Amino acid sequence: MTTPFNERLREVSRSRDSLLCVGLDPDPEKLPPHLNGDILRFNLAIVKATTPYAAAFKLNAAFYEALGEHGLQALRATIEAIPADVITIYDAKRGDIGNSSRFYARAAFDLLGCDAVTVNPYMGRDAVEPFIANPAFGAFVLCLTSNPSASDFQTAATDGLPLFKRVALAVKEWNTADNCGLVVGATRPEPVAELRDLVPELPFLVPGIGAQGGEVAAAVRAATDDEGLGALFNVSRGILYASRGEDFAEAAARKAEQLRDEINQHRRRT
Amino acid sequence: MTTPFNERLREVSRSRDSLLCVGLDPDPEKLPPHLNGDILRFNLAIVKATTPYAAAFKLNAAFYEALGEHGLQALRATIEAIPADVITIYDAKRGDIGNSSRFYARAAFDLLGCDAVTVNPYMGRDAVEPFIANPAFGAFVLCLTSNPSASDFQTAATDGLPLFKRVALAVKEWNTADNCGLVVGATRPEPVAELRDLVPELPFLVPGIGAQGGEVAAAVRAATDDEGLGALFNVSRGILYASRGEDFAEAAARKAEQLRDEINQHRRRT
Repeated sequence: MTTPFNERLREVSRSRDSLLCVGLDPDPEKLPPHLNGDILRFNLAIVKATTPYAAAFKLNAAFYEALGEHGLQALRATIEAIPADVITIYDAKRGDIGNSSRFYARAAFDLLGCDAVTVNPYMGRDAVEPFIANPAFGAFVLCLTSNPSASDFQTAATDGLPLFKRVALAVKEWNTADNCGLVVGATRPEPVAELRDLVPELPFLVPGIGAQGGEVAAAVRAATDDEGLGALFNVSRGILYASRGEDFAEAAARKAEQLRDEINQHRRRT
Repeated sequence: MTTPFNERLREVSRSRDSLLCVGLDPDPEKLPPHLNGDILRFNLAIVKATTPYAAAFKLNAAFYEALGEHGLQALRATIEAIPADVITIYDAKRGDIGNSSRFYARAAFDLLGCDAVTVNPYMGRDAVEPFIANPAFGAFVLCLTSNPSASDFQTAATDGLPLFKRVALAVKEWNTADNCGLVVGATRPEPVAELRDLVPELPFLVPGIGAQGGEVAAAVRAATDDEGLGALFNVSRGILYASRGEDFAEAAARKAEQLRDEINQHRRRT
């Protein structure tokens, strides 16, 4: 029997005692100067140093695509270096008609070997289905994002319900194989808590603590479920660029450990 | 002075007397058997054969990503083979927080050398802005798509206005540099005509005629503007797989010529 993605995520979070997701979004211009822009060397050092504190790694596709073939090779080699008992999320925010989404799913799961992806809900159910066809692989659907313009459409009232809540309820319906989640930004804790009540069974991938300004304690209290699980908190820049010196990996590890502990401190405990 | 993308699109459509966009979405399993799945050889033959009838080529990123480094090389080589006086659209439906979208824009425009991209509006203005920062490059924002689930969210009433019209009006505001357009599916002509009236200045990229079932005449009447311009009609499978024999390129050319003529016949003329 295949373990559904959401169940595996709970097991990993529990056994590693961590809800921390490390975002591997390497910007060559921000790397420690002694690495000369070598993002693979950077990633491998960050993965090795932060794995003890992480439940998951998230790789944002944009940073790799901008580097062409070289970026794709670094992406693959990084994913291969992530231990199998840590979750790997391809943060690609894809979504297209079913025929095209099938090819995107093949790229994320078969070719790259990731465990989950982020997907965009705008095109509706059939754009998401190819990503959740196999219960072993998961999809975090964009719901309420952490960027300033999130309110352009996501909070628009659709027949009395903000669009992001309509998306959450739809994803709850799509979650028949226990492998759907939501991307829920942490810029404000109130809507996160409302979503937690609305769809208690869906795991949240929470960006926006750290560089994007969300406060850790409030975000963790709002997003975790009654077992203190059901959420991953992603930090990218705050960990990656903790130091630009030769000690960047050690500094990233210290920061990851500190964030894991801070998150754990505020998890709901039964 | 840089020619804004939308102006360039009008010039190209006029000078080539075509509103046809050829969708280069090569599925290795559907290629003529004698090509043994060689998508680059397939693409180059299709580009050469159909260029006389096309205003644009659109490359859907999913089909290339599923093939890894090989797919990326084929993507680049195909784009390089498209003549400079034809528009090249990277149909990637990207969209992320500004910092990430900047990297996606770099991939599409600087690295791949495309003229325009498709982008997803769900995350709002700041997710789109990096794609329209340079007037010479364009972005077609997903508005009303042609897939069955488009109505899951796009037609939801937001304070009395369907979401897709809210998106159209937002894009009209973002279009200060004359380089924004909309993706408007042709599955039903009524909403297309309503959008044409709502945002007369925005070009439409219209998928869904051909394999996705839209009717050409109604779609063209609804989507073209008062000058018979302002729209590109994309056909992928209907052209690519017109024949699976050794004559696939000639068959594609005949189909493209026929579609160009059929579209031209129904363009509004002043």
